[in-house]
Amino acid sequence: MAANSTGGEGRPMTSQWVDFRTSPARYKHWRLAVDGAVATLTMDVDEHGGLVPGYELKLNSYDLGVDIELYDAVQRLRFEHPEVKAVVVTSGKEKVFCAGANIRMLAQSSHPWKVNFCKFTNETRNGIEDATANSGQAYIAALNGTASGGGYELALACDRIMLVDDRSSNVSLPELPLLGVLPGTGGLTRVTDKRHVRRDLADYFATKAEGVGGKKAVQWKLVDEAVPRVQFQDRVSERAVAAAQASARLSGGGPGIELTPLEKVRTDTSVSYTYVSASLDRSRGVAEITVLGPGEVPAEDIHALGDKFWTLAMTRELDDLILDLRTNELEIGTWVLRTRGDADLVLGHDALLLASASTDWLANEIVLYLKRTLKRLDVTSRSLLALIEPGSCFAGSLLELALAADRSYMLAGVFEDGDPFAAPARITVSAMNLSNPGGTTPPYPPGKTGGPLPMGNDLTRLHTRYIGDAGALEAVEKRAGEPLEAEEAQELGLVTFAPDDIDWEDEVRIAVEERASFSPDALTGLEANYRFAGPETMETKIFGRLTAWQNWIFTRPNASGPDGALGTYGTGKRADFDRKRV
Amino acid sequence: MAANSTGGEGRPMTSQWVDFRTSPARYKHWRLAVDGAVATLTMDVDEHGGLVPGYELKLNSYDLGVDIELYDAVQRLRFEHPEVKAVVVTSGKEKVFCAGANIRMLAQSSHPWKVNFCKFTNETRNGIEDATANSGQAYIAALNGTASGGGYELALACDRIMLVDDRSSNVSLPELPLLGVLPGTGGLTRVTDKRHVRRDLADYFATKAEGVGGKKAVQWKLVDEAVPRVQFQDRVSERAVAAAQASARLSGGGPGIELTPLEKVRTDTSVSYTYVSASLDRSRGVAEITVLGPGEVPAEDIHALGDKFWTLAMTRELDDLILDLRTNELEIGTWVLRTRGDADLVLGHDALLLASASTDWLANEIVLYLKRTLKRLDVTSRSLLALIEPGSCFAGSLLELALAADRSYMLAGVFEDGDPFAAPARITVSAMNLSNPGGTTPPYPPGKTGGPLPMGNDLTRLHTRYIGDAGALEAVEKRAGEPLEAEEAQELGLVTFAPDDIDWEDEVRIAVEERASFSPDALTGLEANYRFAGPETMETKIFGRLTAWQNWIFTRPNASGPDGALGTYGTGKRADFDRKRV
Repeated sequence: MAANSTGGEGRPMTSQWVDFRTSPARYKHWRLAVDGAVATLTMDVDEHGGLVPGYELKLNSYDLGVDIELYDAVQRLRFEHPEVKAVVVTSGKEKVFCAGANIRMLAQSSHPWKVNFCKFTNETRNGIEDATANSGQAYIAALNGTASGGGYELALACDRIMLVDDRSSNVSLPELPLLGVLPGTGGLTRVTDKRHVRRDLADYFATKAEGVGGKKAVQWKLVDEAVPRVQFQDRVSERAVAAAQASARLSGGGPGIELTPLEKVRTDTSVSYTYVSASLDRSRGVAEITVLGPGEVPAEDIHALGDKFWTLAMTRELDDLILDLRTNELEIGTWVLRTRGDADLVLGHDALLLASASTDWLANEIVLYLKRTLKRLDVTSRSLLALIEPGSCFAGSLLELALAADRSYMLAGVFEDGDPFAAPARITVSAMNLSNPGGTTPPYPPGKTGGPLPMGNDLTRLHTRYIGDAGALEAVEKRAGEPLEAEEAQELGLVTFAPDDIDWEDEVRIAVEERASFSPDALTGLEANYRFAGPETMETKIFGRLTAWQNWIFTRPNASGPDGALGTYGTGKRADFDRKRV
Repeated sequence: MAANSTGGEGRPMTSQWVDFRTSPARYKHWRLAVDGAVATLTMDVDEHGGLVPGYELKLNSYDLGVDIELYDAVQRLRFEHPEVKAVVVTSGKEKVFCAGANIRMLAQSSHPWKVNFCKFTNETRNGIEDATANSGQAYIAALNGTASGGGYELALACDRIMLVDDRSSNVSLPELPLLGVLPGTGGLTRVTDKRHVRRDLADYFATKAEGVGGKKAVQWKLVDEAVPRVQFQDRVSERAVAAAQASARLSGGGPGIELTPLEKVRTDTSVSYTYVSASLDRSRGVAEITVLGPGEVPAEDIHALGDKFWTLAMTRELDDLILDLRTNELEIGTWVLRTRGDADLVLGHDALLLASASTDWLANEIVLYLKRTLKRLDVTSRSLLALIEPGSCFAGSLLELALAADRSYMLAGVFEDGDPFAAPARITVSAMNLSNPGGTTPPYPPGKTGGPLPMGNDLTRLHTRYIGDAGALEAVEKRAGEPLEAEEAQELGLVTFAPDDIDWEDEVRIAVEERASFSPDALTGLEANYRFAGPETMETKIFGRLTAWQNWIFTRPNASGPDGALGTYGTGKRADFDRKRV
């Protein structure tokens, strides 16, 4: 692996940790303009604005910093602009839409950096599809110039792809012929499974560095339409207006709510927000994460509270923490998840959200955001252990944390030496955890059975847990709403182990120590397989099949070795391949 | 990657090429006994019988040579023993069933060898499941001692797992804690998706090197029953007899047919059988493979012809060729597929098979074997190009070769300089290619729509080709039985390109040269993604998600580096892990 010229794993030299917080006023690479129901996101990358030194972001190529802004913009469109029903993604450069991930950046990055970068960009593109499918904000890629590699993959995440028809503007996936790697942001999966490009044409397309444009691109289904340049702007506007008119975006009143800057205190050993905190123990390789439940009964008017509404505030913090630890703390391999608070208040917030998620855009957005954040946890390459202790509030939405964990430990009884008079820990299954929470369901696409918080495989975490065991699932569903103590929870299969006070400390300590002693790579592979029992979807295929192959290719000398294609690209030297097929 | 001590890529020193042909009389490691409807396969590995020097196959651990015999036995049970309706797999050693893949062997093997080895063992285990599901030969794993790693994975491929209950016999997947790799033969996928072990228990199980036995193994669904040693043999017999009685194995008369030794001539530049041949061009990295159609109208009595029946003979040869080239010719990255012969005779053989596959065990077995062989092609990490020229017979079963290819080129017209009076090339879709070939379907499991020759994703190759485009699929289905020339075939999307005589040579040459110039790793990843559009099954998950992660882990220094876990195992040294999570 090529070492990068900055400290750590590609960490920017200007600050100790990569920060995922930004806002439109601080964007260097994107412009966000809203005109009634149509928003326009214009990519205009600052060549000299790379997150780390060592490369220039020419031709609208991107690095993590560019994608952090895109993620922020997509989030703000959902929360701050309820009036927006169609989003046009286009380029501020002439003749080029986007050249994809910056190659110098990839060549100089460590393996973990490359993998983390691809994971985040994948999540952002999945978020774009989620906005189109579930928020009534349809994305239209207006390719006013060539879209190559990650540039075309960004277009693939949009609902409609419009390409200027000028005999020089093409779409392409040149990663294989030019760089010896795969398109790493879902391109291969979306070409066949979303756009239904025939596999042999897709094969030819991915080996032709210069790509395909005009009528052939339409005929092969690579784009939806090719439009002469003189008509392009008008046609894009027409399509955007039509998409906005066809949108099922919910109303529910009010203007947007502002996503105010997250209050966060970051030190070398801790990360703290209002409801979420993590203490980092480098010697043990553990982050102890605690999520606090809400402090009070939810006010009926979610809009008035805005981003202070507990579920949204907590989700924003959790989202930022996951991204921070994933990017900045590679050697902290185990995340221990705890909650603290009043389960009834959690359930109260859940109920309020579910009661209005089918009619109120904001309630819908909050549930969708929590869903995406939990999915981010599912694809995080860290061992997740949930500890369920007295005083915790693993109920409804927060129970999902325990269900997302690789294992859970629930104390049977209380800590005799600590607080012998405490109430024992309880967990509660609620409508948030069920595939069919009755009349309160938000307007999920027909045929989906994953309930409010589906995993990438389109099933609930409960369903995935009991895959192939309908009886066990039903037994749990029947107990929804009931606080369950450790023995019952274990009997129902909701928690892995239920040690008592005498065994608790040893069992938990051994589990954490053991985890730290195993091969981090093998753990990543194990968890990436076990977490996704059952059906696969385009999303799980992207994170499972495609990403795993890409990671493998990234480690191979043919891509990342001294004579590999990533390093020799643009030098005039030809990559020297080991020709053995594996 | 650790180099291995033998020539080439783990090639046995006793012969130039690994040979996959064997027969029971030559087995070193297995005993095959048939008693009426029940066969017993006893694993009794010869410690000193390794395929290459450098390791001892202690405790019924295995290498490729052991698995070649297992594959042969499973095949022969299907063809030579129509009377067998249940197969017991057990061990000839005391106290140990099977310790899995030999660790020294893995540690000394090159990366391609490890990957190829895992692929073949996976295919054999899938074949065991295919025999259970589609041939009425149910496999029962009789674990008369501990089954660890690949040993337990072999049991997982069986329909029923019986474990002796003696407080020392366990099942386990110790790969992660002991070796820093994953169980590489489907274990993780089958534990959750086949046996429905809860994912958190599965997580605990795969980190506990000593495994789980007795009642807990039953309770966690890791095995079906735990039986005291004194009752073990009787109980196994009972279960086998019951399985045989419940079997839906077809009759159709006759004793088994003998799988006579394949006649094969192997040189450094060619491999030839009766119907299949390959010429190897190392400088271009190409194998030119030609499959000959049948020489005559099929005799009505398939049984009388036995393994001389064209479809079976051709399939056996193709199967052996795939295995040979995959294992022995790593630098030949492109396979060019041609056929030669009379399409009507191919279709005649297809029709005869399909007419009796639902009633005659042999016809059924031949179709199933062709299915498995085509699946082997689908997961082969070589670029596949089909060339459809005058004189070819890409019809029905042989059309599948073109549909399995990454691209196909069909000559429009004839070679003016070669044979100007030849009939132009034609291809024919037949019932063999369709998902519902009408009343002639063999008894496929309900709900399966993949027709006689499904891919691993349970769809036909045609359906996969037109995934998401029902109109295109229907248009092709309507033309079944009609020979189609190049232009029509291309218009229907059945072939990729249809150049004429003037362009043919250049187009084909460029395609082959280009392929040889690309990164072999990136091609492997590309093809592994594109070939499996649409739904995923347990089988595609094993070859896609699980295998891709395992391959990645195999390349990582934490497993295969000088201080990696594979090399340090058993030395008393502890692996020195890079603790970064990726």
